[in-house]
Amino acid sequence: MHAYRTHTCAQLRAEDVGQEVRLSGWVHRKRDHGDLVFIDLRDHYGITQIVTEVDGPAFAVIESLRSESVVTMTGKVVARAAEAVNPNLPTGAIEVRVTHAVVQSAAQELPLPVFGDAEYPEDIRLKYRFLDLRRERLHKNIVLRSNVIASLRQRMIGQGFTEFQTPILTASSPEGARDYLVPSRVHPGKFYALPQAPQMFKQLLMVAGFDRYFQIAPCFRDEDARADRSPGEFYQLDFEMSFVTQDDVFAAIEPVLHGVFEEFAEGRTVSPLPFRRIPYRESMLKYGNDKPDLRNPILITDVSHHFAGSGFGRFASIVEAGDVVRAIPAPKTAEHSRKFFDDMNVWAQGEGFPGLGYATRKGGEWGGPIAKNHGPEKMDKLADELGLGPDDGLFFAAGKEAQAVKLAGLARTRVGEQLGLIDKNRFEFCWIVDFPMFEADEDTGKIDFSHNPFSMPQGELEALETRDPLDILAYQYDIVCNGVELSSGAIRNHKPEIMYKAFEIAGYSQEQVDTNFAGMINAFKFGAPPHGGSAPGVDRIVMLLADEPNIREVIVFPMTQKAEDLMMQAPSKVSDKQLKELHIRLAPGVTLD
Amino acid sequence: MHAYRTHTCAQLRAEDVGQEVRLSGWVHRKRDHGDLVFIDLRDHYGITQIVTEVDGPAFAVIESLRSESVVTMTGKVVARAAEAVNPNLPTGAIEVRVTHAVVQSAAQELPLPVFGDAEYPEDIRLKYRFLDLRRERLHKNIVLRSNVIASLRQRMIGQGFTEFQTPILTASSPEGARDYLVPSRVHPGKFYALPQAPQMFKQLLMVAGFDRYFQIAPCFRDEDARADRSPGEFYQLDFEMSFVTQDDVFAAIEPVLHGVFEEFAEGRTVSPLPFRRIPYRESMLKYGNDKPDLRNPILITDVSHHFAGSGFGRFASIVEAGDVVRAIPAPKTAEHSRKFFDDMNVWAQGEGFPGLGYATRKGGEWGGPIAKNHGPEKMDKLADELGLGPDDGLFFAAGKEAQAVKLAGLARTRVGEQLGLIDKNRFEFCWIVDFPMFEADEDTGKIDFSHNPFSMPQGELEALETRDPLDILAYQYDIVCNGVELSSGAIRNHKPEIMYKAFEIAGYSQEQVDTNFAGMINAFKFGAPPHGGSAPGVDRIVMLLADEPNIREVIVFPMTQKAEDLMMQAPSKVSDKQLKELHIRLAPGVTLD
Repeated sequence: MHAYRTHTCAQLRAEDVGQEVRLSGWVHRKRDHGDLVFIDLRDHYGITQIVTEVDGPAFAVIESLRSESVVTMTGKVVARAAEAVNPNLPTGAIEVRVTHAVVQSAAQELPLPVFGDAEYPEDIRLKYRFLDLRRERLHKNIVLRSNVIASLRQRMIGQGFTEFQTPILTASSPEGARDYLVPSRVHPGKFYALPQAPQMFKQLLMVAGFDRYFQIAPCFRDEDARADRSPGEFYQLDFEMSFVTQDDVFAAIEPVLHGVFEEFAEGRTVSPLPFRRIPYRESMLKYGNDKPDLRNPILITDVSHHFAGSGFGRFASIVEAGDVVRAIPAPKTAEHSRKFFDDMNVWAQGEGFPGLGYATRKGGEWGGPIAKNHGPEKMDKLADELGLGPDDGLFFAAGKEAQAVKLAGLARTRVGEQLGLIDKNRFEFCWIVDFPMFEADEDTGKIDFSHNPFSMPQGELEALETRDPLDILAYQYDIVCNGVELSSGAIRNHKPEIMYKAFEIAGYSQEQVDTNFAGMINAFKFGAPPHGGSAPGVDRIVMLLADEPNIREVIVFPMTQKAEDLMMQAPSKVSDKQLKELHIRLAPGVTLD
Repeated sequence: MHAYRTHTCAQLRAEDVGQEVRLSGWVHRKRDHGDLVFIDLRDHYGITQIVTEVDGPAFAVIESLRSESVVTMTGKVVARAAEAVNPNLPTGAIEVRVTHAVVQSAAQELPLPVFGDAEYPEDIRLKYRFLDLRRERLHKNIVLRSNVIASLRQRMIGQGFTEFQTPILTASSPEGARDYLVPSRVHPGKFYALPQAPQMFKQLLMVAGFDRYFQIAPCFRDEDARADRSPGEFYQLDFEMSFVTQDDVFAAIEPVLHGVFEEFAEGRTVSPLPFRRIPYRESMLKYGNDKPDLRNPILITDVSHHFAGSGFGRFASIVEAGDVVRAIPAPKTAEHSRKFFDDMNVWAQGEGFPGLGYATRKGGEWGGPIAKNHGPEKMDKLADELGLGPDDGLFFAAGKEAQAVKLAGLARTRVGEQLGLIDKNRFEFCWIVDFPMFEADEDTGKIDFSHNPFSMPQGELEALETRDPLDILAYQYDIVCNGVELSSGAIRNHKPEIMYKAFEIAGYSQEQVDTNFAGMINAFKFGAPPHGGSAPGVDRIVMLLADEPNIREVIVFPMTQKAEDLMMQAPSKVSDKQLKELHIRLAPGVTLD
């Protein structure tokens, strides 16, 4: 018989009754029923009930066991009495009557219980992560993460991609977020940087002729934490393809994302292929942002023209000034109190906006000052245009376009949430496409890149040379799921002459481009293929699938929000010898106990 | 028709003749045959021949093309004339008669040719890695690497392992090689370290109850380069398992390694399962080291007893002093000149040994001073005992055991190589097992750990308490292929009381253990399973399969031996602002241009 186990704790069934078996695992729970003692023995795979009589041969050992001790139990599989069968447990038909118990590792008193769902402070959970990871929810999340990543990998390989490992010790990049730096021992005064993303490397892989690259890539940004961003490191499904159009990129990655979400949906639905493509400007109008949650059925509409010269003076003057009025329907709110509408206005003011106007409607009858001033006929016309029903209210976000868009977007989300319109059992994907290449500074009018300077402008050189820069769109796109931006991506600008021209429009000289982006520009001069890609965030995908709002619940050993590893005690002091070898000193005034 | 390609450059066959197609790729080679110009168009997948008449519509564009320019060719598939068919090229039956050519990216003059096999200096190759990677051998190596890693992953998953990502920003470890350090911005004066290996994390994953962990793990050691070790980062197939014996570890990983080697063997043979287990002491005796190349048929034998009180005074006195004489057969060397034997002796002296004795033999007749002094009868007896034939010579390594073992091992390799006995078409695996737990310092006699202090001693606490430390073996093992150590591994010591005792034998107090290994010891006090694992080096596996002696030939973007990335210019200077944010300064005297 094997020293530790003949079966895992998830394997035994009614048909195994009578077998001599050996199981090993953790003492999940111990219950004393007078003449019998029961132990739920737990391993990675499941739980099996162990039982001993108080005069049984293993009783003395079992008696002494604390929860979470590791033990090896040898005994006979017996059927449970009918009333003791646990249909919720795969092994619930049997128990093991133990004849011999060996303690492999006795547990001390625990700082954090494993059994049960009690909430514990996060610092305790992180310090004793090895205990927290034994708890059901976290254990499941981490296994889910592993399975999601394995599935992403297989699906990418299935799409003809090849995984490459790009360097982790590399060069500081001239822009972007803050780098983590690594002092060089061999080259005094010089530093490596950890990659914020393998962007340069993946483009160079395309220049090197590898057709379809991907990597579950560790990325590093020395930025402060957010709920959806860990300090330190995070993972992207980084990919890049050669000789492709934007549609080819979508066609390659959509089945991967769709497939993974379907695989781990657990009853939730995933939007069908192909995913919707929504132009950036349409998204800003209809959803009030460029990462729409399509589970929310509410659509924003521009209703400025309804108020031009209208009886409602405030909106009329806003429209006259060239600004906008946007309407956010509040479906089936006839029975909602005035307070619901007023509270939204108070919320908007709390967010720093001048206010959120509204009109109530019940059985086709309008209420509220805007409707009163605008008049029921015009309101009816507006409602008809929006396809509203007789019990659908309305909110209005008015003012300068950028502000009105933002408020309308936030209000759409809030109304959707408060009215319970967001179906939690759906994954709704879309692409946001046609991002503008350039934007003008609101105050100075100066033209600058609106997003990524390295994306290919639609119309290429000709567009740059002949069109108003503010009308030029880029082959740049975001993939969004349920209001979460999983990634930006682009068809890259692989032509130095187009890059120089684009930077010239944004006010940079050829010399500046050559200096700041030497590596890329030089490589493109030796034969570069057209290429493009994206890099969906792995942590965010897992957060969506695990339905966890906090990224630390889907990372096996996360750092705290203050970028500390409480279990490993990182970061920590290092010796003077180490500093000396690295040719650095601490800054004056830095003292350590 | 797609903007860039209807087919890859490896797809078209005789049955495609007549089709209108579009291909994109790099101009691999251009040949001017007077009225016809041929282009070998290359992409990641293969090569297709493109042809144009000098008065064809695409001639002007093609005429202007430099090698390695990227171009899109549209035209008709035509059959090659019978005498022009190239059976070595999958597309060799056809060519594409081009009607339209678009230059996607014109190449400047190249610093490094892609076509051809000319050797180039490594600094040029690394600076223009994106060009070097287009060359056939390197391109193939990197694809092999990717395929090997993908195969390792699938096979590990097939064996029930789950991949986890452990942190890359973590704590400095108290021992081992030199760490790479990362200054913390948030915690002035403190540093993260990049992991030398995820050893702590994988053991904590076992303590956390995840049963079978693996990871293609990036590891970081700030050590100087060797041929088989990159400076900076390298990858391990890191794995760990709970509730296992040493045999379980072998049974889990052997099919993975065997399978991967078979998959990429390309006609080479792989030693059958199960791999041989060779006790450490046997390996040191028979092969002269603990990483034997089993392709070499030569076996070393201890022949000390043959020389006790013998006529050959030097060996006799060595044996009398308690030292050893080891024999290394030199099979079928009857026709080898005396110079062959003398040169071996000179080589041994050059390596710092006193010398390598020998006896020649031809048709059963002995030659050389040792045989003469020892006498033919005793020599015959010795040869019979070793199973030698009448034309097999012998070398002798004599002296203190450690020295004689080392010399015998080196001589075995050298003799095997010089006699052409090492079959390059075999992969010969073995496990080296039963490493001694402790060793005595040669001078002081002080007992210390001979290898890994965290391995489980065979016999556990009882052995530590009752046996001579020098007789205690550890559950520690190496996996070796063709003389290359792929990895060490062990069944870990998961019991604090055994760890304290083992360290006590090596002269460390419980307080020292608690201080230096707090994280691990503490975790083991809350229920730790018996566990063990290993971490075969991925780079070394790929080197063996690619038959490349230099690790930089199997890494996509390697650093130089001086730990520089010549393409990305890493390491590099950073700004004062960055240093200030990280609370560090350069050491006095460090100046940068």
